[in-house]
Amino acid sequence: MTSKSIKIAIAGLGTVGAGVIKILEGSKQVLGHRGGSVAEVVAVSARDRSRDRGVDLSAYEWCDNPVDLAGLDTVDLVVELIGGSDGPALALARETLKRGKAFVTANKALIAMHGRELAELAEANDAHLRFEAAVAGGIPIVKALREGLAANTISGVYGILNGTCNYILTRMEREGLGFDEVLQDAQRIGYAEADPTFDIDGIDTAHKTAILAAIAFGQAPTLDGMPIEGIRNIAPVDIDQARDLGYRIKLLGVANRTENGIETRVHPAMVPVSEPLAQVHEATNAVVVQGDYVGQTVYVGAGAGEGPTASAVVADIVDVLRGSGGPVFGVPVAELQTPVTEEVSGNPGTYYIRLSVKDEPGVMATITSILGKEQVSINSLIQRGCAVNEGVYIVMTTHETSESAVKAALSHLTEADCVLETPTMLRIQVAGTQ
Amino acid sequence: MTSKSIKIAIAGLGTVGAGVIKILEGSKQVLGHRGGSVAEVVAVSARDRSRDRGVDLSAYEWCDNPVDLAGLDTVDLVVELIGGSDGPALALARETLKRGKAFVTANKALIAMHGRELAELAEANDAHLRFEAAVAGGIPIVKALREGLAANTISGVYGILNGTCNYILTRMEREGLGFDEVLQDAQRIGYAEADPTFDIDGIDTAHKTAILAAIAFGQAPTLDGMPIEGIRNIAPVDIDQARDLGYRIKLLGVANRTENGIETRVHPAMVPVSEPLAQVHEATNAVVVQGDYVGQTVYVGAGAGEGPTASAVVADIVDVLRGSGGPVFGVPVAELQTPVTEEVSGNPGTYYIRLSVKDEPGVMATITSILGKEQVSINSLIQRGCAVNEGVYIVMTTHETSESAVKAALSHLTEADCVLETPTMLRIQVAGTQ
Repeated sequence: MTSKSIKIAIAGLGTVGAGVIKILEGSKQVLGHRGGSVAEVVAVSARDRSRDRGVDLSAYEWCDNPVDLAGLDTVDLVVELIGGSDGPALALARETLKRGKAFVTANKALIAMHGRELAELAEANDAHLRFEAAVAGGIPIVKALREGLAANTISGVYGILNGTCNYILTRMEREGLGFDEVLQDAQRIGYAEADPTFDIDGIDTAHKTAILAAIAFGQAPTLDGMPIEGIRNIAPVDIDQARDLGYRIKLLGVANRTENGIETRVHPAMVPVSEPLAQVHEATNAVVVQGDYVGQTVYVGAGAGEGPTASAVVADIVDVLRGSGGPVFGVPVAELQTPVTEEVSGNPGTYYIRLSVKDEPGVMATITSILGKEQVSINSLIQRGCAVNEGVYIVMTTHETSESAVKAALSHLTEADCVLETPTMLRIQVAGTQ
Repeated sequence: MTSKSIKIAIAGLGTVGAGVIKILEGSKQVLGHRGGSVAEVVAVSARDRSRDRGVDLSAYEWCDNPVDLAGLDTVDLVVELIGGSDGPALALARETLKRGKAFVTANKALIAMHGRELAELAEANDAHLRFEAAVAGGIPIVKALREGLAANTISGVYGILNGTCNYILTRMEREGLGFDEVLQDAQRIGYAEADPTFDIDGIDTAHKTAILAAIAFGQAPTLDGMPIEGIRNIAPVDIDQARDLGYRIKLLGVANRTENGIETRVHPAMVPVSEPLAQVHEATNAVVVQGDYVGQTVYVGAGAGEGPTASAVVADIVDVLRGSGGPVFGVPVAELQTPVTEEVSGNPGTYYIRLSVKDEPGVMATITSILGKEQVSINSLIQRGCAVNEGVYIVMTTHETSESAVKAALSHLTEADCVLETPTMLRIQVAGTQ
């Protein structure tokens, strides 16, 4: 054992905070070996002092206000597990970094919204800023991108970043259930929040995508200009069609280097069953990275939960113990690129379209004519079963086209008399394409 | 850009060495940002000075003897790409570390055979010793185990670590070809060496398994006591049977924490098609890690080749630039556990057995009686097609048993008159089991 010791304060004592304390206390010696110095919890803060968390807090200093942790002379490193992009989490981050102390967080919203400012503070005050737990839980993907693949120019990174959505999609596929039914069940068993908006509407995935893009491409994290679409509109018929066509539907966060700069987006997509991401089920997360030298690498693991998140937080702490440095987002803040806030590439690729139409003569001619006018060329077309109001579903996949062309066609289709519902569009995501 | 500069010597200028130079020269600025100092190649050594390698060597000092690189005053870090567990590679490693200089290598044999000695030298002389490229090519699995999962007690790590074997098994499965035929074809197109022994007999996988075990469990790397079996005896009938039973055959390197210590082994195994490793095809590598807090994480990518290997070597160099420290195998050499050199757990699990037997009455009774005597209980049994000498194949899977029991039964079966060929046995590898 070495004699050097780093003193830690933890703000937020939910299951993850308690997990971090358990690991730090339970593995003191081995962590000391791995980090070359000892991590010692000295202070904590949480809303409710009296709650039983399964860990003994009596030896730690207690602060009612988490921001006070940063000011304690005894504290070298603050772990923030409060959550929220602003409020006490942001105040604590600023105060900690201003004092030149290390800041470790699992807070994706905080880093996605204020990453640039905090990285600037970290740099100006020579302080560590770490957030492995903010993306994909226990999978060390931030480290892999920042360090493991440091030799590479990354052309793209995308993945399944939200366990709740993947759990819902998996159950819809396996059990043939509708979205609402599975969501309610997921809420009942604790796999979805009472207010599931952040998860199912893609905001959580967007935060994580912004962070991955920042590290992969050396740009400030931002949600500005990121098209974000969740999984609310996925119907059982889409899941069935995906299966018939050899795909699975997954909610993806995508960040690509394009001729016009870095483009990011969040949307459900059809993933070929032979691709690694199609094999990722339930609440598991997975990230695919394409680098110029390394080629494609894939990282799979639990995306959330006490153990995986605490594992990532403690890995960050051990990195601080080891004195592992380097710029927060891979390049100094002054060199961070300005993100592209307007999508201009038109998002080339192939698409899945589902229409609910009247079952009457001439409909197919109307549809194909509208698609043709927008230069959207049909690869496969299936008419099936009954849809609403005695209509039928028409399900198509396109040849290579652009998202803008498909959207223009869908806008005309929506106006056509024969189309009964707002059309559904899903991108077909193939590895190696953008 | 920072003004600090680290001067690099490269020993061995095959495709990987040339690739390392290309990355270091081509990405000087971005690597400088990532590492906080600049990496500069100053000296090289190779067998043939005149060969065209697609990189300009004129600015670098040339040493005919690679070991001389370590002694150059201008050199801070030596990259060893010579290969071989002994000879000049070992001499260069010793000389470099003794002088307190950083040593980065892609040489799995060197680390597997001399890892403890070299880690001791590194520690004594406060020198970096790094070998990310030695295991699974460009996948940052050494970093993930050493740093990303530092919070965890690892219970097991296993994977597909040899691209040549996985390529052969993939083609046998897809094309229904025999081992020899695919091997010859692989040699013809450069996917297998002229002397393929190291790959197909599992030695290469054993080296990598020893290194993974060392980092995962904090023990000295060794091949002592590691049962090593390659893929020579896999027949098309086994591949067919695996498919029928819902498995794929993969060569695995396995390291497990058991009650009796750390056990390592290399052998082909039946992997359920639903498991991540079953989806890993051709020359791709993949590693599964089981940690107590993080649960299961999986890492997939190219296991060899110029780009991926150079990517890993440069990641190590950038880590040295960043001053990222910590003990070589996660714990100080004095704390390294002594590996278990004798397998004592009996390797509990389920097994696949293929027998070639005479097609005559009473055979089944003989076989089941022998198995019963060794307490090997049959889960499924299929008799199929024609084997050699007008015999038939009997293919079985067992209920949970031990490898020693199966081996004892096989030894008796081999002696039985009705058994025509040496029986084949394959372990059925299920995630979460050992």
